[in-house]
Amino acid sequence: MDLNQLISKLVEFRDARDWKQFHKPNHLATAISIEAAELQEHFLWKSPDEVEGKVGDEHSCSEVAEELADILMFSLLLAHELNVDPIEIITDKLKINEIKYPVEKARGTATKYTEL
Amino acid sequence: MDLNQLISKLVEFRDARDWKQFHKPNHLATAISIEAAELQEHFLWKSPDEVEGKVGDEHSCSEVAEELADILMFSLLLAHELNVDPIEIITDKLKINEIKYPVEKARGTATKYTEL
Amino acid sequence: MDLNQLISKLVEFRDARDWKQFHKPNHLATAISIEAAELQEHFLWKSPDEVEGKVGDEHSCSEVAEELADILMFSLLLAHELNVDPIEIITDKLKINEIKYPVEKARGTATKYTEL
Amino acid sequence: MDLNQLISKLVEFRDARDWKQFHKPNHLATAISIEAAELQEHFLWKSPDEVEGKVGDEHSCSEVAEELADILMFSLLLAHELNVDPIEIITDKLKINEIKYPVEKARGTATKYTEL
Repeated sequence: MDLNQLISKLVEFRDARDWKQFHKPNHLATAISIEAAELQEHFLWKSPDEVEGKVGDEHSCSEVAEELADILMFSLLLAHELNVDPIEIITDKLKINEIKYPVEKARGTATKYTEL
Repeated sequence: MDLNQLISKLVEFRDARDWKQFHKPNHLATAISIEAAELQEHFLWKSPDEVEGKVGDEHSCSEVAEELADILMFSLLLAHELNVDPIEIITDKLKINEIKYPVEKARGTATKYTEL
Repeated sequence: MDLNQLISKLVEFRDARDWKQFHKPNHLATAISIEAAELQEHFLWKSPDEVEGKVGDEHSCSEVAEELADILMFSLLLAHELNVDPIEIITDKLKINEIKYPVEKARGTATKYTEL
Repeated sequence: MDLNQLISKLVEFRDARDWKQFHKPNHLATAISIEAAELQEHFLWKSPDEVEGKVGDEHSCSEVAEELADILMFSLLLAHELNVDPIEIITDKLKINEIKYPVEKARGTATKYTEL
């Protein structure tokens, strides 16, 4: 299955439940934020080693992946609502980031582009 | 370009800057959460009509799409770090949601599955 | 009970459980973000009228207040860790906001100061 | 200045700008979430040592405190909108947490109460 077929399945799932009425762009943004918090909760209070342990364990990793799937689902549904192509907007953003973060300046540093 | 080619480009971008060292799963989760907040900021204090106006305007919509691209980028990089396939984890989650939200119960309501 | 007495109680609760070791500033920031997401979840997918109904109902309102309490608790514990006085930092920020948002420009508009 | 006097000042600031119309509970919740993300951004990509360095440096610490002040401000304004007393709801939540996290079980562990 490719990305467009997957998006069609997500929309089909949504429409079978008559949920388009709830999927306003601001609500989808909030839903993404909530799912991102659930993802973060898996790593809360954990040391760097414990984080590694968490994703190294098959069962824990699949729980983390499930939260990530939620984020991706709502993100793809928002892309659908905005009528934009996910691969296209990421490709466009990558071009912007190439200018914001030129290799020679950004290499090996996590500094934000505004302070590079 | 398909999704796997896109992920390869994201990883290439990251590696050219030697950023893998920063992309710990917990940090990527936090980055997603921060980008989700930036997405939400576009809709903050806005009425439902103003939200519609925002995404209906071409320039505003492309700003919103840019934030969405950031969320998707970090999400795909996290999937890469977890060694999971984005399309597969979404398909798996969709199956779980089909059980959590059966059409006959979930149709037309935004109630959470725990209270359906 | 005044605010300082309350903070002492929060610290006492924490120390009785030997939790200071977990309360690193970045973790407390993440905890606040997670609790803020739980707060938002109460309003997710809801129309403006449903939001009003939610906080107008005594039982629902107390659930919302409980999430708010979580945010405040972690925020006060972070202030304690940073060794700053909550009332003082808010008073300072209010002065900054008075300059960022002069009454004559900001009155009746939700526009961000960068665009006022 | 005590907490109630501070809240009065926050409400006065808001009313001078005619902002009550924007301060719906869901919007305030979103504002808190956005400010929490800005707080997290100060620690993004940082190692435990770098986090310590950040809050140990006076200038950086005051920047972090400013984000915390934003979270507290919106939280206090939401408490005001919900017509609840911040100190009271925190005291109530502390009682709940004392039951959820009994000292003998919770001591020295960051495990969630559902798994204690």
